[in-house]
Amino acid sequence: MTSAVYPGSFDPPTLGHLDVLERAAALFDQVTVAVLVNPDKRGLFSVEERSDLLREATANWPNVVVDSFSGLLVDYCSAHGIRAVVKGLRTVSDYDYEQPMAHMNRSLTGVETVFLTARPEFSFVSSSLVKQVAGLGGDITAYVWPSVAQALTTRLRPPAG
Amino acid sequence: MTSAVYPGSFDPPTLGHLDVLERAAALFDQVTVAVLVNPDKRGLFSVEERSDLLREATANWPNVVVDSFSGLLVDYCSAHGIRAVVKGLRTVSDYDYEQPMAHMNRSLTGVETVFLTARPEFSFVSSSLVKQVAGLGGDITAYVWPSVAQALTTRLRPPAG
Amino acid sequence: MTSAVYPGSFDPPTLGHLDVLERAAALFDQVTVAVLVNPDKRGLFSVEERSDLLREATANWPNVVVDSFSGLLVDYCSAHGIRAVVKGLRTVSDYDYEQPMAHMNRSLTGVETVFLTARPEFSFVSSSLVKQVAGLGGDITAYVWPSVAQALTTRLRPPAG
Amino acid sequence: MTSAVYPGSFDPPTLGHLDVLERAAALFDQVTVAVLVNPDKRGLFSVEERSDLLREATANWPNVVVDSFSGLLVDYCSAHGIRAVVKGLRTVSDYDYEQPMAHMNRSLTGVETVFLTARPEFSFVSSSLVKQVAGLGGDITAYVWPSVAQALTTRLRPPAG
Amino acid sequence: MTSAVYPGSFDPPTLGHLDVLERAAALFDQVTVAVLVNPDKRGLFSVEERSDLLREATANWPNVVVDSFSGLLVDYCSAHGIRAVVKGLRTVSDYDYEQPMAHMNRSLTGVETVFLTARPEFSFVSSSLVKQVAGLGGDITAYVWPSVAQALTTRLRPPAG
Amino acid sequence: MTSAVYPGSFDPPTLGHLDVLERAAALFDQVTVAVLVNPDKRGLFSVEERSDLLREATANWPNVVVDSFSGLLVDYCSAHGIRAVVKGLRTVSDYDYEQPMAHMNRSLTGVETVFLTARPEFSFVSSSLVKQVAGLGGDITAYVWPSVAQALTTRLRPPAG
Repeated sequence: MTSAVYPGSFDPPTLGHLDVLERAAALFDQVTVAVLVNPDKRGLFSVEERSDLLREATANWPNVVVDSFSGLLVDYCSAHGIRAVVKGLRTVSDYDYEQPMAHMNRSLTGVETVFLTARPEFSFVSSSLVKQVAGLGGDITAYVWPSVAQALTTRLRPPAG
Repeated sequence: MTSAVYPGSFDPPTLGHLDVLERAAALFDQVTVAVLVNPDKRGLFSVEERSDLLREATANWPNVVVDSFSGLLVDYCSAHGIRAVVKGLRTVSDYDYEQPMAHMNRSLTGVETVFLTARPEFSFVSSSLVKQVAGLGGDITAYVWPSVAQALTTRLRPPAG
Repeated sequence: MTSAVYPGSFDPPTLGHLDVLERAAALFDQVTVAVLVNPDKRGLFSVEERSDLLREATANWPNVVVDSFSGLLVDYCSAHGIRAVVKGLRTVSDYDYEQPMAHMNRSLTGVETVFLTARPEFSFVSSSLVKQVAGLGGDITAYVWPSVAQALTTRLRPPAG
Repeated sequence: MTSAVYPGSFDPPTLGHLDVLERAAALFDQVTVAVLVNPDKRGLFSVEERSDLLREATANWPNVVVDSFSGLLVDYCSAHGIRAVVKGLRTVSDYDYEQPMAHMNRSLTGVETVFLTARPEFSFVSSSLVKQVAGLGGDITAYVWPSVAQALTTRLRPPAG
Repeated sequence: MTSAVYPGSFDPPTLGHLDVLERAAALFDQVTVAVLVNPDKRGLFSVEERSDLLREATANWPNVVVDSFSGLLVDYCSAHGIRAVVKGLRTVSDYDYEQPMAHMNRSLTGVETVFLTARPEFSFVSSSLVKQVAGLGGDITAYVWPSVAQALTTRLRPPAG
Repeated sequence: MTSAVYPGSFDPPTLGHLDVLERAAALFDQVTVAVLVNPDKRGLFSVEERSDLLREATANWPNVVVDSFSGLLVDYCSAHGIRAVVKGLRTVSDYDYEQPMAHMNRSLTGVETVFLTARPEFSFVSSSLVKQVAGLGGDITAYVWPSVAQALTTRLRPPAG
């Protein structure tokens, strides 16, 4: 059985993440979405909130589980018998950024990184851009699912102007 | 009448900005230089100082106006009947960085982003590099106009060494 | 009045070309689609066939005309009072390829090149890829309009295997 | 069972190809190396020669088979129940080149493209560079396995100088 | 005599830095490794610690000296009669980032920037990635020399988990 | 004494080539401009014509010699005691293209490749673009020196239109 992990901050998760996850779930026997616990960087949502949003969206996907991790991703993979890390690529610079980490991870434990290309219609959708647009009062319902949109609305107070 | 906006931080404006602006003014009926008000990031110069420097340099350009904005750029465009956003590209990574925002803005309101290529001789001139060089006592008079150079000298205290 | 030219081989034209053209037509008073006559390279379709396909698709667009040109693009622009060259960008390498030509053209006559970003859903659609897929018997009706699809089917004989 | 195909020209196959293949074989239940039959381009080696070299190198890999194909890759995948296309990436421009084809293939039949990163030590090894070096009399034994090196030596006559 | 400077943060120095330095030392009569004193950014190691680590590793290289500098790099070059700045490139984005600074430095004083390509096996090794891995308890002995590894272990307390 | 080679097709040489050469000559004790003899590709000018144009332009540069070579560049370097290959970079894609060859050459014989950045004002000037513009009757006197311009005019017959 080949297990894979799809790691990330998911602060918040977007439809782009969900698309990559769905496609990974079609390729591997089991896929774990792993939310990174980063003690140095406070997110907009807590790790629990992000995990809950992901669990809600993937509730009916039989081979997807949601987890969180701290420490080295490769240690998490070793501890859970995971052979592949899944990453979604939107732009060329995404690959340029991910390539050294893929090499480092393989150098450390031999874990493989598998890159999937984001659907064109989600190629510009990132958590940070969605937060920025929502924070300024823009409509982000095309890029996230309803409960994420609602969570963003509740959390962010758009400027009056 | 086709109106365009040329948005940015302009902290401070450079001759590279002025070159892009002059060329945009030759293509569109009216061009608004719009200084971004970013409450999260304190600049070296205030939005008013930046606007004044830009107004001085474009005083004789009949179809250029200087303004500032906060909130979403696309909302500013909608409110002012502006159809196109102008961006200057220096390097390939500039385009890689701008492409998602252009897609997002078109997705939000249909506003178009128009990319112009910076003149080769200004391809390495950015506000941040100019500030860094000036802050270390370097001569930046080739990259900004005299009143910007003077403003930088007044504002920054170069190290003695 | 600001006139622009949208030059290319258009062998054959695609929905991606049409999208760029439509958006250029919204920005400029007049846009000329100019099919390049390249004596060194025989295309799948003649310049006349390509022009006819483009004329059919743009028949109802009041400020778009279809023409062909040989020689230097900048000379064509000078002869027709055209101030701007429109180019559509799909990927980062498109920009990397176009940038030197934009600099050269401005250096030669001062003509401006204006880059528009292809819609994400057309970011992978090129004439050459469409020809390759059609030539191998694939369905290309999602990337071109019906008369282009029909012209491709008539022209190409997919391999039996 | 998840099957994948690793397509290419393999003219000739290199140690870089073998590395990607080995790693793909660790991720998928079965991997088919598929040598492209390109009627428009005569290679240095015939499709049979390339297939034989690949068969020799993978003889002991239980879940790897060698095949050849003509026509659309996506049709080959549909006919053989293959869900994923494997591609190895050496440089950033490799990804820039492959991305439109990955989108096109998914658009045509939903087949997924999975990108693996070449090991750093093979990042500069390509069939074309190996042929060029061998053709000029250089030592290519570090980049291909012995029978490929011998086949190259037999086929190419290095210049005397 | 042609002197060159190899500037950087070196926080900490890696085997990748050492490789670039060794190759620069084979090309130039003298090479100065110059550790940047950045008053705005506190490093993991002090400038003295970094300089000591570099001095230890290069003790037997007759034409390499270790120094530190603050202020403009071009002023340091002018003061020391240095004609060339050496930079190591790992990825394409490294070059994209360095190109404007190379242009700026030549524009300021005429100093030349010379780019060397990192060995493939060090193409993913950076100070920041090494720090990150070490901080999470990973084994970084393949990317730095023993005294750097020891200094990292002493300085960083890996998380218990 | 450190010798370097600046290899290329130089069909024809441009002011961009001359700029890179001049700067290389300031860094190395001797620089050989080496015109590649490519039996598979007929150029616009013969290797002798290109060499003569380069000799004329560098006649007064004491440490520059003009030569030609066939076969592997690294063999030429070994035969002449040359330690470094000089390459000029205009765009990011130039580096992406050159990087594998630099790795290959170092892998073959240990020869070093040194990259210099083209001056911004020559960043768009290439032999092929100059030939294309001149062939269509454009004015290329800003990109080549007078005898190259004259040679181009004599060789090429611009189209009448």
